[in-house]
Amino acid sequence: MTHVGLPRALGTCYYPEHWPQERWEADARMMAESGLTWVRIGEFAWSRLEPRPGDLQLDWLEKAIEILNEAGLKVVLGTPTATPPRWVVDKHPDMLAVDEQGRPRAFGSRRHYCFSHEGYIEESRRITAILAKRFGASVAAWQTDNEYGCHDTTVSYSDAACRAFQRWLEARYGDIEALNEAWGNVFWSMEYNRFDQIGLPNLTVTDPNPAHALAFRRFSSDQVREFNRVQLEEIRKYSKAPISHNYMGQVTDFDHYALGADMEIATWDSYPLGFLEDRVVAAPEYKQAFARQGDADFQAFHHDLYRAVGRGRWWIMEQQPGPVNWAPHNPAPLPGMVRLWSWEAFAHGAEAVCYFRWRQAPFAQEQMHSGLLRPDSSEAEGLREVRQVANELASAPKVEGNVADVALVFDYDAEWAWAVQPHGQGLSYFGLVLAQYRALRRAGLNIDIVGPSTRDFSDYKAVFAPGLMHLPDDLRTALEEAKCVVVLGPRTAARTIDFEIPTPLPPSLDALQVTVTRVQSLRSDCPVALEGGGNAVGYLETIASEHEPVLEDSAGAPVAVQNGNLMYCAAWLDDEGWDRLISIVAAQVDMVTRSLPVGVRVRRTQSQEFWFNYNAHAVQTEAGEIEPASLIMRTL
Amino acid sequence: MTHVGLPRALGTCYYPEHWPQERWEADARMMAESGLTWVRIGEFAWSRLEPRPGDLQLDWLEKAIEILNEAGLKVVLGTPTATPPRWVVDKHPDMLAVDEQGRPRAFGSRRHYCFSHEGYIEESRRITAILAKRFGASVAAWQTDNEYGCHDTTVSYSDAACRAFQRWLEARYGDIEALNEAWGNVFWSMEYNRFDQIGLPNLTVTDPNPAHALAFRRFSSDQVREFNRVQLEEIRKYSKAPISHNYMGQVTDFDHYALGADMEIATWDSYPLGFLEDRVVAAPEYKQAFARQGDADFQAFHHDLYRAVGRGRWWIMEQQPGPVNWAPHNPAPLPGMVRLWSWEAFAHGAEAVCYFRWRQAPFAQEQMHSGLLRPDSSEAEGLREVRQVANELASAPKVEGNVADVALVFDYDAEWAWAVQPHGQGLSYFGLVLAQYRALRRAGLNIDIVGPSTRDFSDYKAVFAPGLMHLPDDLRTALEEAKCVVVLGPRTAARTIDFEIPTPLPPSLDALQVTVTRVQSLRSDCPVALEGGGNAVGYLETIASEHEPVLEDSAGAPVAVQNGNLMYCAAWLDDEGWDRLISIVAAQVDMVTRSLPVGVRVRRTQSQEFWFNYNAHAVQTEAGEIEPASLIMRTL
Amino acid sequence: MTHVGLPRALGTCYYPEHWPQERWEADARMMAESGLTWVRIGEFAWSRLEPRPGDLQLDWLEKAIEILNEAGLKVVLGTPTATPPRWVVDKHPDMLAVDEQGRPRAFGSRRHYCFSHEGYIEESRRITAILAKRFGASVAAWQTDNEYGCHDTTVSYSDAACRAFQRWLEARYGDIEALNEAWGNVFWSMEYNRFDQIGLPNLTVTDPNPAHALAFRRFSSDQVREFNRVQLEEIRKYSKAPISHNYMGQVTDFDHYALGADMEIATWDSYPLGFLEDRVVAAPEYKQAFARQGDADFQAFHHDLYRAVGRGRWWIMEQQPGPVNWAPHNPAPLPGMVRLWSWEAFAHGAEAVCYFRWRQAPFAQEQMHSGLLRPDSSEAEGLREVRQVANELASAPKVEGNVADVALVFDYDAEWAWAVQPHGQGLSYFGLVLAQYRALRRAGLNIDIVGPSTRDFSDYKAVFAPGLMHLPDDLRTALEEAKCVVVLGPRTAARTIDFEIPTPLPPSLDALQVTVTRVQSLRSDCPVALEGGGNAVGYLETIASEHEPVLEDSAGAPVAVQNGNLMYCAAWLDDEGWDRLISIVAAQVDMVTRSLPVGVRVRRTQSQEFWFNYNAHAVQTEAGEIEPASLIMRTL
Ligand SMILES: [Zn+2]
Ligand SMILES: [Zn+2]
Ligand SMILES: [Zn+2]
Repeated sequence: MTHVGLPRALGTCYYPEHWPQERWEADARMMAESGLTWVRIGEFAWSRLEPRPGDLQLDWLEKAIEILNEAGLKVVLGTPTATPPRWVVDKHPDMLAVDEQGRPRAFGSRRHYCFSHEGYIEESRRITAILAKRFGASVAAWQTDNEYGCHDTTVSYSDAACRAFQRWLEARYGDIEALNEAWGNVFWSMEYNRFDQIGLPNLTVTDPNPAHALAFRRFSSDQVREFNRVQLEEIRKYSKAPISHNYMGQVTDFDHYALGADMEIATWDSYPLGFLEDRVVAAPEYKQAFARQGDADFQAFHHDLYRAVGRGRWWIMEQQPGPVNWAPHNPAPLPGMVRLWSWEAFAHGAEAVCYFRWRQAPFAQEQMHSGLLRPDSSEAEGLREVRQVANELASAPKVEGNVADVALVFDYDAEWAWAVQPHGQGLSYFGLVLAQYRALRRAGLNIDIVGPSTRDFSDYKAVFAPGLMHLPDDLRTALEEAKCVVVLGPRTAARTIDFEIPTPLPPSLDALQVTVTRVQSLRSDCPVALEGGGNAVGYLETIASEHEPVLEDSAGAPVAVQNGNLMYCAAWLDDEGWDRLISIVAAQVDMVTRSLPVGVRVRRTQSQEFWFNYNAHAVQTEAGEIEPASLIMRTL
Repeated sequence: MTHVGLPRALGTCYYPEHWPQERWEADARMMAESGLTWVRIGEFAWSRLEPRPGDLQLDWLEKAIEILNEAGLKVVLGTPTATPPRWVVDKHPDMLAVDEQGRPRAFGSRRHYCFSHEGYIEESRRITAILAKRFGASVAAWQTDNEYGCHDTTVSYSDAACRAFQRWLEARYGDIEALNEAWGNVFWSMEYNRFDQIGLPNLTVTDPNPAHALAFRRFSSDQVREFNRVQLEEIRKYSKAPISHNYMGQVTDFDHYALGADMEIATWDSYPLGFLEDRVVAAPEYKQAFARQGDADFQAFHHDLYRAVGRGRWWIMEQQPGPVNWAPHNPAPLPGMVRLWSWEAFAHGAEAVCYFRWRQAPFAQEQMHSGLLRPDSSEAEGLREVRQVANELASAPKVEGNVADVALVFDYDAEWAWAVQPHGQGLSYFGLVLAQYRALRRAGLNIDIVGPSTRDFSDYKAVFAPGLMHLPDDLRTALEEAKCVVVLGPRTAARTIDFEIPTPLPPSLDALQVTVTRVQSLRSDCPVALEGGGNAVGYLETIASEHEPVLEDSAGAPVAVQNGNLMYCAAWLDDEGWDRLISIVAAQVDMVTRSLPVGVRVRRTQSQEFWFNYNAHAVQTEAGEIEPASLIMRTL
Repeated sequence: MTHVGLPRALGTCYYPEHWPQERWEADARMMAESGLTWVRIGEFAWSRLEPRPGDLQLDWLEKAIEILNEAGLKVVLGTPTATPPRWVVDKHPDMLAVDEQGRPRAFGSRRHYCFSHEGYIEESRRITAILAKRFGASVAAWQTDNEYGCHDTTVSYSDAACRAFQRWLEARYGDIEALNEAWGNVFWSMEYNRFDQIGLPNLTVTDPNPAHALAFRRFSSDQVREFNRVQLEEIRKYSKAPISHNYMGQVTDFDHYALGADMEIATWDSYPLGFLEDRVVAAPEYKQAFARQGDADFQAFHHDLYRAVGRGRWWIMEQQPGPVNWAPHNPAPLPGMVRLWSWEAFAHGAEAVCYFRWRQAPFAQEQMHSGLLRPDSSEAEGLREVRQVANELASAPKVEGNVADVALVFDYDAEWAWAVQPHGQGLSYFGLVLAQYRALRRAGLNIDIVGPSTRDFSDYKAVFAPGLMHLPDDLRTALEEAKCVVVLGPRTAARTIDFEIPTPLPPSLDALQVTVTRVQSLRSDCPVALEGGGNAVGYLETIASEHEPVLEDSAGAPVAVQNGNLMYCAAWLDDEGWDRLISIVAAQVDMVTRSLPVGVRVRRTQSQEFWFNYNAHAVQTEAGEIEPASLIMRTL
């Protein structure tokens, strides 16, 4: 929590290489006048920094940084490795990632590299070192690359990835018999004689061994961290500025905690309207109602997640300022939403909110992505709200320490395990955790998302940890011994580290006697009713336990059981089911809950309480009436 | 009908190679105590039988067979050719099948071989001979390979398949001019100069010539039979035990009659809940109502089909005992269904019902597939019902001769012809025959499914033969001369052997003057009403006939016509239409029909009448009230 | 308008190579007796004209032409280049087109060539020259190739296409810096050093640069024109007969105006029922109501479009005469529709209507496509209606000059630009123009579709030109200076020639001050209501203008503005919106409009007024009651 006391700040993303140098000063002046203090630059500029192999052209960037600094702006410099120029690809033709269908992913957009390609890793090290050496002293922060994993780029099925995977497996398992044994390769005669026989788990006749698939997901995540570390190593040789990476929404293919542990700040790119359209799972009526506002929990979830990834220090590096270009539909935000999104980030502890982008580009892929300025430099709708936020910030508290009664565990490894074996159509770990998060938000609670390496839960009244398919021993111990109420399940500890069903059968807890004896996945039109209201939906375990059920189905079978502080919930629940579960827990730990209406959410910092209304209509709350697409800030 | 008088038996599928040898005896003892008499083993064990090229390790299998035999269990030994180990693929890299998109189907699961690869055929012969020689005397039956065609593996677009197809065509047509003429290759200048110019019918710009596509389907089916025959040849050198293969549900890519003719017993793998989800075509409400019971006709259809394939001798080799792992949703069967499914098989004449699998595997692809035991060896829900069936069998009749008033022709060649040219979206021969089968079942009739080589229909009061697109001359004669009522159409005799529309126009029958003058396919929202009730749906022929119509549309156009025993129905009908058609036929042949409610079905053997209730609620019938998911057995 | 005064004629498509020579005379006689005067032949006959390289067999074709000519029939001879025989592909293995997924499109159907393959271009030149030399004097017209672009064949991702694209770009941009600048390749470091580095815009990680994609679309269109020109060059060396090409419905991948400018006549292939099923975008209820009649505007649109492409001279080369074989569902036309479709073509100015095909082929891909005769040479249903049309033509006026109050601009380049950047799911330029065309038809107006090279609008009272994303300067001037009302927008002039957003912001008109300040795409469930009725749907621009709004949204924001003759409409409207817009314009220019019911349409020539009823029920109109699937012809 090193950020406490910093001023809450605003910023923007700027591409000096897109505009004539004559405009730079006017741009910088206008940014400063608008209340911005941060500018991110450089992250796609490789073809201008090195137009031909070895032909370095860094003066223009130095000039741009100077102009920005002189206007009082601080610079975040991005390494340009998300966009290697054509000549880099010509030099390393096999550096292209390969998709699951076996097709090389061609040059012509961005992120066209395989994390495992050694030649490209060296190019990345080289250009990073050059930038770090030249600009290490003049920039206030760094960003590595751009949006790792975006466009499904974490996983590559290239030859380079295959060879690296074989080495990774050999390092992990030592000898091939150990791997065969660990994966159960005797099944279907999948046993290998040597590591170099192991292929990638794509294009198999039917599903590959889930142990094989999960190992490949873990390997792929490790490759991202290794790739990133090479840049950190070079930057730190020459610069003391903090380093960050801008994560995306719901990109879960690599372990963000692992990368976060290597850097000083986590940032993320928040596009509420695009995300609602292209990744939030919701009924059409819901998407209709929030088409111009976004989902009221999706951004908040990521704020809380990336606060954990950044160990307290986090920003929005790219905030949607108007219509975007890339979603199935790209409406304009309701007036007020840019301000609301900005304040929501601060309410969750952001140090800075930067808008993407300063001026809309008239060319190329994102020409329909709005900026704070239009292509002709006139002011776009969003800029007015940014100015308002800047004014409000002047009299607002600085960044404060975080407060939350509830922790919710989110584990990337569990996400991969569920993806490898969802067991039922549409079931995902991310979906399960988000469903539980939504229910906690409906109850008006502040939530900390915490990673699976957390061992100390003493700050919390309750911990929710659904779906942790593999539960490391020390986490199991920490959860069992926590003094707060801990809600586990479904699917907790269902697999060993190598994706085997353990014996004794899961979850095999010391502090709570419960056994999963059967697992079902349910059609969406076949919910199983709970006694007293709500339903199990999608995923349901049959459990045997000597303890009294906390929830049971209408036939009397236990659905959730508890012993002391430890509770196990054997099902994915519907909204009413989650609400009941949370009420039960809240009553036990003396935690006040609310029942917030759709689209209304509350978030507290140490000194403030924020009420957000995502609806297009005014809503009456205990904090007073909130205007459509607006918020109330109360001092506590 | 060689099976009459055998005791009805139970069994299971067991994988000794998955468990420590110390457990084998206890397992065997428990199987026997549970009332099982058959155990299938070995069919995926190649990597343990031959871990490296030529390194044979057969002792463990001998030990396993000994232990099972000593416990009083009879062994079915499977050849392990569905799962060639990695080293086999390394030796023959081009043995992998190639999918329709041109991608090799990689190692890492099962069935990763092309039936046309000569190197692999020899590997298959070699390992089969080795097993037959060593175990020919100690096993009670054989199974070749496993589930031919499962995972869409009958058809391969590999180079090996292409070369074999060219040879197959040359053998069939002799010279290239004959092929060009037969296929009408003058159309679109598709004429070839030599057989080695002929490619496979995938990835063409628009549809390939249907004659080309159909020839490739026939070739692909022949390759399965040839592959299987190599194993039969080796086994029979060393063993007198009967040989079987375990077919799947609705895998129609190869001619099961052809394989069946080469072996003593047909078996199949029955997964009612998985099949309902992933292959039965039905409204969501129907799938919801039967999600935990399965479709009330789908298994019965296959029982009747495989009875024909086995020329009277058939088993269930794999019976679902609880939730499976591979369907879009995997619920648990309603209590009672494992018993119901088992008895339904016996009612249709099964000699044995074996449950898949004895103990749930804790690892690899099928770890979520339930067994009779859980991974920790505790008893799963299904085992209780298996014990009940075993008890009931003790006092039940033995396997009896079959009785049926009605024959329904099912022809794999017609299935391929319709697939090559469905003419309308969603139309399939399988769907047409199943629709007619369902209607006959609603009428409470016992049905024999018969193959297209049937010439003697004297056992039957009525024969239904819809959709036989190519009608061989002698089958045509047999049907025209049958003494019972024969219902043909739609699409009967619509094509020559080489997929040409014949002149005179179809169906061109001697005993019934009717001509199809036009063919339509209909949108699902554009049914054509029949006078008196019911509709033509999907597929409708305009026919000209001098005979009185049996059914006509509301505009007075004939839809079905009859002369003497021979009837032609020119349309795919809806349920009401089929029911009317069957009533008309039943009245003519003095056949008593019922009108059974949804989910209730009747089946008679020589001495017993079985009433099955697939519903989740009790149903009142003439045989009395049947409990949910239960049955009534009456002695006749 | 060179066609005025020609007799309206009928014809058919005939394949003498499919039938024994003995039938040819009887066929020719029967055609003539049925009232046909034109016969198209030869377009798929390469394998019979040249069965082996250089082995020319032209005598049979000469004989066929003789027989047809002797029966009084005029022949259109097609060049056979849509179906190169197998040996041509063996000679040029890399002539196959490559699909967007990178897969060669195999031999075995038709159109299996890449327009950019130089070897194949020479084969095409060679066979065309041979035919032109031999038959240049004996045929009355020519057709080049067959249905360019059908089966998605305009665009090929082959190596040949890539190299040709690089040359095309070099010719267009001269040096690589100019291209980088024009495309904005600085964005994401997509800058090239040399033209030979530029790949095709497929399989990129995320969207390619839209400038890149659009250039490739333009190049691909140019390649079709170049391919066609080679044939024109050869034919004109030896023949004075007019040359045509048979275009398809809604194939918009190449610029038909460009090809049309090179030839004397435009023809197209009209399959109303197939098109309704497989390309018309409409609600299921609409498709159900018109399943046997087709869409009441789709054919008319193409009649008007191809009249423009043919600069007044156009035919239907293939008219659906009964059920087709290739749509998702293939019902029979309602009795009367073949006549209706034929007369509708004449009402729009067709010189000839030819039916596809004379006799149904009993073999190969189109065996289920009905002809005027059945495969057994009996007369099919359609022929009766053709005879009726022939009789009616005897006393009908000849082809007349066209009359229309309204012009609607259709621009292929705009279609590609929208396809490259639809901005919202389901939005297309074709859809926008068709929606406006439908509204003009509902108003009972005669419409001329005109190309983007039109500069003289003096014949019209109103011009509609929606969606012209790039507006060339001289067209802009012509539209601004036109004396009639000109309705532009949405998206007019939104891009420079190189797909950049221009400054000043679009549409930047001299005669109307309006600026698009923001662009949105809308979910289909999020329409924006207009004040007074109707909605903006799908696509909506925010505009700033000093002029009074003609339409505004319910919040008072302008949606359409006008100054003098020039109007800009900033949205895609729903039916009510378009109707209101047209009413406003009609009132200004004193143009009488009707409000025609669904399925009823009117079309006038100089001396006749036609009323068409596409409905399956009779409709009362001011011209009297029209029978179902019928028409009324009134002399003016
Ligand atoms: Zn971004
Ligand atoms: Zn199986
Ligand atoms: Zn055609």
